[in-house]
Amino acid sequence: MAEKEKLTIVMFSGDLDRALAGFIVATTGASMGMDVTMFFTFWGLNIIKKNEGGIKSKGIMQKMLNLINRGGSRRLKMSKFNMLGLGTWMMKRLMKEVNMPSLDEFIIMAKQMGVKMVPCSTTCGVMGGLTEDAFRSEVASITGAAYFLGEARESKVTLFI
Amino acid sequence: MAEKEKLTIVMFSGDLDRALAGFIVATTGASMGMDVTMFFTFWGLNIIKKNEGGIKSKGIMQKMLNLINRGGSRRLKMSKFNMLGLGTWMMKRLMKEVNMPSLDEFIIMAKQMGVKMVPCSTTCGVMGGLTEDAFRSEVASITGAAYFLGEARESKVTLFI
Amino acid sequence: MAEKEKLTIVMFSGDLDRALAGFIVATTGASMGMDVTMFFTFWGLNIIKKNEGGIKSKGIMQKMLNLINRGGSRRLKMSKFNMLGLGTWMMKRLMKEVNMPSLDEFIIMAKQMGVKMVPCSTTCGVMGGLTEDAFRSEVASITGAAYFLGEARESKVTLFI
Repeated sequence: MAEKEKLTIVMFSGDLDRALAGFIVATTGASMGMDVTMFFTFWGLNIIKKNEGGIKSKGIMQKMLNLINRGGSRRLKMSKFNMLGLGTWMMKRLMKEVNMPSLDEFIIMAKQMGVKMVPCSTTCGVMGGLTEDAFRSEVASITGAAYFLGEARESKVTLFI
Repeated sequence: MAEKEKLTIVMFSGDLDRALAGFIVATTGASMGMDVTMFFTFWGLNIIKKNEGGIKSKGIMQKMLNLINRGGSRRLKMSKFNMLGLGTWMMKRLMKEVNMPSLDEFIIMAKQMGVKMVPCSTTCGVMGGLTEDAFRSEVASITGAAYFLGEARESKVTLFI
Repeated sequence: MAEKEKLTIVMFSGDLDRALAGFIVATTGASMGMDVTMFFTFWGLNIIKKNEGGIKSKGIMQKMLNLINRGGSRRLKMSKFNMLGLGTWMMKRLMKEVNMPSLDEFIIMAKQMGVKMVPCSTTCGVMGGLTEDAFRSEVASITGAAYFLGEARESKVTLFI
């Protein structure tokens, strides 16, 4: 049996629009029979944080960062025209009108389609001492940048979003 | 005859500087004999909107978004140092001094060199219900994310800008 | 002897967080035996500017741009939560706590590991008439976009950061 073609996506940004772009490509790839890995790093870690509950962390600075940079798929904002939340609200309404899934639904859908979502170990430390406890159930174990490059070098397509 | 090597670029951003970076790579690729496709999505759709006339759309939110997010190659701003337009004006002057084409000229040049410019169907709906009428004549038909991935998996180089 | 697999990274952004992401991937690639080229363009040129001394340039606009857009690895700011420098200071402290190298150390390390760092000729002109004199000693000669695409088309992985 032929091996599946690979698609690897680095999710660097925590903006709602870039997150959506990533999941549109990821789920499209999975529906085309590709083997998809999403590697979440820096602000992208916000996308896969739990929406409920606080984030436990040691150290004052870590606690502060987790407070101002709470994250969670339902808290993300647009990179442009956020306008104190009005633009983000409008975008979510427009998405509903054209029957585009919400980011939350995209994450659940991606998991069901076999997309592998991996948090980057190097940046989990810097971004507030995050442990696997901070992430939602759809997410795989925390892994390093070498794992990402290992996947990427075997991929037909690699994107940095 | 050997097939041409492919270069595929996702144009996500509507910032003038990122748009220029995309067209520098695209036209360089075309001049090296590569088969280049640019896929415009989210704010990147602004790059290829007509500069003249308003954008027709149905629905109040769509009309509002098209008003605040007008787009067109001559209206784009720098991602940094826009300074109420002063920075963008300065950048355009600096480009002229070093004989770099304007974004408008780049789009026309790209078309002449055979670069294919494609608007993303999924995001045309979300970004204000855009139809082909909103885009300039150099642009190809609106197409979906599966088309992009089909091109990307056959490409030597794929960039997300 | 088998040729080394290539990794090519376009460094477009001058934000501290994106710069760090680029160097994490570049040094990881080099440690895995890959042949790594980083191509600095637009704001990314700021990453490899000398930290000391001013930047000499001709023309009033060039001088102005080099003043407001000084650059240098130690002057870069976070893309988010800079908060007048507080967020960037906090991030640097968090990096130290988890033993992540500073951006300055990353650049030196990358050079020692054989990573090739190349400034883009097309944008050196636009970004204030930069000459090789503006860049630190680890940096290779200024080269054009065709060189980048030549490397990228032979690369296993190409990223636009």
